[in-house]
Amino acid sequence: MADDMNTSASRSHWAWGWQDRLLDDTALTNFGKLVGGMLGFPVQNPEAATPLAGATLAGARLAPPDTLANRFDATPFQRALHAYGRAYPDVVRGFRGDYATAPDMVAFPETAAEVAQILDWASATNVAVVPFGGGTSVVRGVELEAERHAAHPAVVSLDLTRMDRVLHVDTESLSAHIQGGASGPVLNRQLAEHGLVLRHYPQSYEFATLGGMIATRSGGHFATVYTHIDEFVQALHTQAPRGPIESWRLPGSGAGPSPDRMIIGSEGTLGVITSAWMRLRRRPVWRSSATLHFDAFRDAVTAARLLAQSQLSPSNCRVLDAREAGLHQVSRKGKAVLLVAFESAEHPVKPLMDLALELIADCGGALPSPPKNREERPGDAAASNDASADKWRNAFVDMPYLQSNLVRLGVLADTFETACTWSGFEALHADVIKTVRTALKASSPSGRGFLSCRFTHVYPDGPAPYYTFICPARRGDEVAQWMDIKAAASEVLAKHQATITHHHAVGRTHRLWANRQRPDLFTEVLQGAKQTLDPAGILNPGVVFDPAIA
Amino acid sequence: MADDMNTSASRSHWAWGWQDRLLDDTALTNFGKLVGGMLGFPVQNPEAATPLAGATLAGARLAPPDTLANRFDATPFQRALHAYGRAYPDVVRGFRGDYATAPDMVAFPETAAEVAQILDWASATNVAVVPFGGGTSVVRGVELEAERHAAHPAVVSLDLTRMDRVLHVDTESLSAHIQGGASGPVLNRQLAEHGLVLRHYPQSYEFATLGGMIATRSGGHFATVYTHIDEFVQALHTQAPRGPIESWRLPGSGAGPSPDRMIIGSEGTLGVITSAWMRLRRRPVWRSSATLHFDAFRDAVTAARLLAQSQLSPSNCRVLDAREAGLHQVSRKGKAVLLVAFESAEHPVKPLMDLALELIADCGGALPSPPKNREERPGDAAASNDASADKWRNAFVDMPYLQSNLVRLGVLADTFETACTWSGFEALHADVIKTVRTALKASSPSGRGFLSCRFTHVYPDGPAPYYTFICPARRGDEVAQWMDIKAAASEVLAKHQATITHHHAVGRTHRLWANRQRPDLFTEVLQGAKQTLDPAGILNPGVVFDPAIA
Repeated sequence: MADDMNTSASRSHWAWGWQDRLLDDTALTNFGKLVGGMLGFPVQNPEAATPLAGATLAGARLAPPDTLANRFDATPFQRALHAYGRAYPDVVRGFRGDYATAPDMVAFPETAAEVAQILDWASATNVAVVPFGGGTSVVRGVELEAERHAAHPAVVSLDLTRMDRVLHVDTESLSAHIQGGASGPVLNRQLAEHGLVLRHYPQSYEFATLGGMIATRSGGHFATVYTHIDEFVQALHTQAPRGPIESWRLPGSGAGPSPDRMIIGSEGTLGVITSAWMRLRRRPVWRSSATLHFDAFRDAVTAARLLAQSQLSPSNCRVLDAREAGLHQVSRKGKAVLLVAFESAEHPVKPLMDLALELIADCGGALPSPPKNREERPGDAAASNDASADKWRNAFVDMPYLQSNLVRLGVLADTFETACTWSGFEALHADVIKTVRTALKASSPSGRGFLSCRFTHVYPDGPAPYYTFICPARRGDEVAQWMDIKAAASEVLAKHQATITHHHAVGRTHRLWANRQRPDLFTEVLQGAKQTLDPAGILNPGVVFDPAIA
Repeated sequence: MADDMNTSASRSHWAWGWQDRLLDDTALTNFGKLVGGMLGFPVQNPEAATPLAGATLAGARLAPPDTLANRFDATPFQRALHAYGRAYPDVVRGFRGDYATAPDMVAFPETAAEVAQILDWASATNVAVVPFGGGTSVVRGVELEAERHAAHPAVVSLDLTRMDRVLHVDTESLSAHIQGGASGPVLNRQLAEHGLVLRHYPQSYEFATLGGMIATRSGGHFATVYTHIDEFVQALHTQAPRGPIESWRLPGSGAGPSPDRMIIGSEGTLGVITSAWMRLRRRPVWRSSATLHFDAFRDAVTAARLLAQSQLSPSNCRVLDAREAGLHQVSRKGKAVLLVAFESAEHPVKPLMDLALELIADCGGALPSPPKNREERPGDAAASNDASADKWRNAFVDMPYLQSNLVRLGVLADTFETACTWSGFEALHADVIKTVRTALKASSPSGRGFLSCRFTHVYPDGPAPYYTFICPARRGDEVAQWMDIKAAASEVLAKHQATITHHHAVGRTHRLWANRQRPDLFTEVLQGAKQTLDPAGILNPGVVFDPAIA
């Protein structure tokens, strides 16, 4: 099922998402004024993106294999579109027309058999293959570094988005067999006919594909228990260069180490996820949400900890510090915010919300308005009545678009995230704030910067803190500037033994620190797995567990 | 912290557990009459176990290494005690004095450094090492087959039970660092001082060690969500022959495939789990439990499915068919039973029980008595008031003792278990009942047998059915008889692509079918991991993913 939403004709070759979501000049100027006011420092004069015709993009080095020639596309637009993910340095490089390491060709297989054929051809010819879903990586997950690009006769971006169908739905077992190239909206539209939904909404939801979410261990909708896509995977069909790897549909198993758990997080290095049996939910009917305001961030943290440890398993349990709350316009009064929500298709959730609010009553949170309880039968207009939650949700989805527009205004904006124990959070947080503020000051032309924190997910043993950093860009030198800040942040995470990534994946950006976090012998095991499954070493070279290039 | 409970002086060398829990002759005769009545066929005349002095047990083939000689024990009792797990064929072989493949020595290391030293010595001398916790394996997980036993100059059982301390408790993050050799009661006694508990009670709880639970992916207390020990592991310290593998304490991570998930389920083939950071709970205060009776098993199944799909996450949600309910004396009226319970340290759970009962109200279950709601503050007498649930719990813990006594009475009794989708359960169940009944009839001298089913755990996408089979034994030929029935059951599970084990592990008993369930290329990956971590191939040879011996 090809889908309008998923054709790439109107995608911006450099910015996040759709071309027409880029602001026009007037709107950009107004946006700049607004943002400057919120951040406390002025934006710079707008610059225009280098048109594709003026970009650095060498000719394709190799012709596609004869038998599948009609599945390949080597036009500059497709090559540029598949050259990068959408991290800050990606958008900047695209903005400046730097496509030196773009793939030579883009392949659009339509079946798992075609994926296998392409991998056979590539293994025989030493062509590097980069599995590509929505292209939403924020960790340089889909590009080859120059040295590795040069080491292969060609690089092929393997775009799975023509494999976007829901193949089978099992309503009794709340699960469905879905092709790896289906994006969030495309697969959920097909599931909606059955009253079911894959309740997993990463910020990249609009474009990210199922295979990409699984390969990168994406984090999604639920703030507790069912946080990572890992928990939604029932079985995987993966095509490795050596052959297929297919696991059985099992709700649980104790038969040795899980095969799926090695593919989940392998980021395209071990095989291509062609389809998966996923665990679904019925569309929620009952919902309850509440927004609590706290004078002290620390009290909001305590409330979140108590909820995470309660086993009430709220669907949402997100903490925003005062700056983050202001940025998202959830609270402008300098208050920290805790968003709590419950949802169910099966039973009313007001009793759960009542228990939750009672549990955190002593933490000092104020409820500006009572919890909103809703009951939405299929066909009801899905009108929300919790304005704070809605504002936060919209801002969440729009954020990547804003980031691209900020590049035009000479504003560097990015995020990093982690997970740590509750007992380790306070010291980590203080160190992050101190270190990253210093890095922002040192790297920003005006010495100004913005840094905020929220929790995206919470566990009984610790939170997943998420930091947003923004400062004036050193124009023309943005990537080096960004790397300085990013390295400072990554070092402080490693120092505290907090994970280098809770749900943004490793890619190439986090590789150095992931290699420190990962036990050395396990790195050897993964490299051995790579040798077993991809003996020619063609799949996404340089990512996750490969040694960094000196 | 050595612990009285954990010394092996009064353990039976052949039967489950403590020597003094074996029934005396009079009690055994009475027990036989009772059991015969319940099963519908008579037991046989009691036989006595072969005394250890008369057992087949060759001399130890090798001396321990000089530097650690005082950590080794080569007495017949210790060698016999460590020769087998406690599956039916294990108990039978021990009962008949067959210890031909017993380890040559038992090592009792007291530190992770000593474990490393022993592995160094064994790697250099090609001595096979079998990590040993409580010795409660029911899948031949801790014995070497004769051919493999003969292929090594000696076999050492590596008993971890002297490493049984809780090293550090983090009450804020609800977690603790615990040595791998601590049994359930030993570790929970230490945690109780902090108001915390590892809420994981496999049937082997009395003896099973933390490292053994992790190595075998054991299933425990919670019937939903937190079913396997996997979910309780925060970080692992594993000693492989090549060196240590230590993961960080992380509540969640997306930094590539999880190192812990390769060790969990590796059953002593890749390394020895010397300690682990575990996720704990506060001791429950509020509890609610209910027992529902159903005329039709199928309706109880539907109720369990609705609860599993509700996200109410009951701590207990177990279905017993009428035979199982009768066996455990939970219901004698030919009714199927659903046991439901909630528990929390943080909030009252009556509202959750109310929602649960409302949700399944249409399934036709009768409540013989209203749900029991309890509130137990620390120090309260832990008196339960749900008699059905208590009966079931006591029967559950006593079952392995009963099995050993049944061996003396010429009764073959064992269990097998699996997990499947809800949509696949009905056909699987019908096929299991038909096939195993046929196998019981064919193999039993009198053509009589007993077969019952319960669900031990339930998931949104499927149940974990657990079958008990009992029949008169072919005395002296019990192992072959048992293998016929076990193979028939295993074949029918594989035919339906239901897992060969949900929580009993693979060991040697399930290896053939686990190798069919596991994708071939993943088997190659695991064998590669083994080569990387244990290049001499000394750790528990022949288990999980090794090829079966022809």
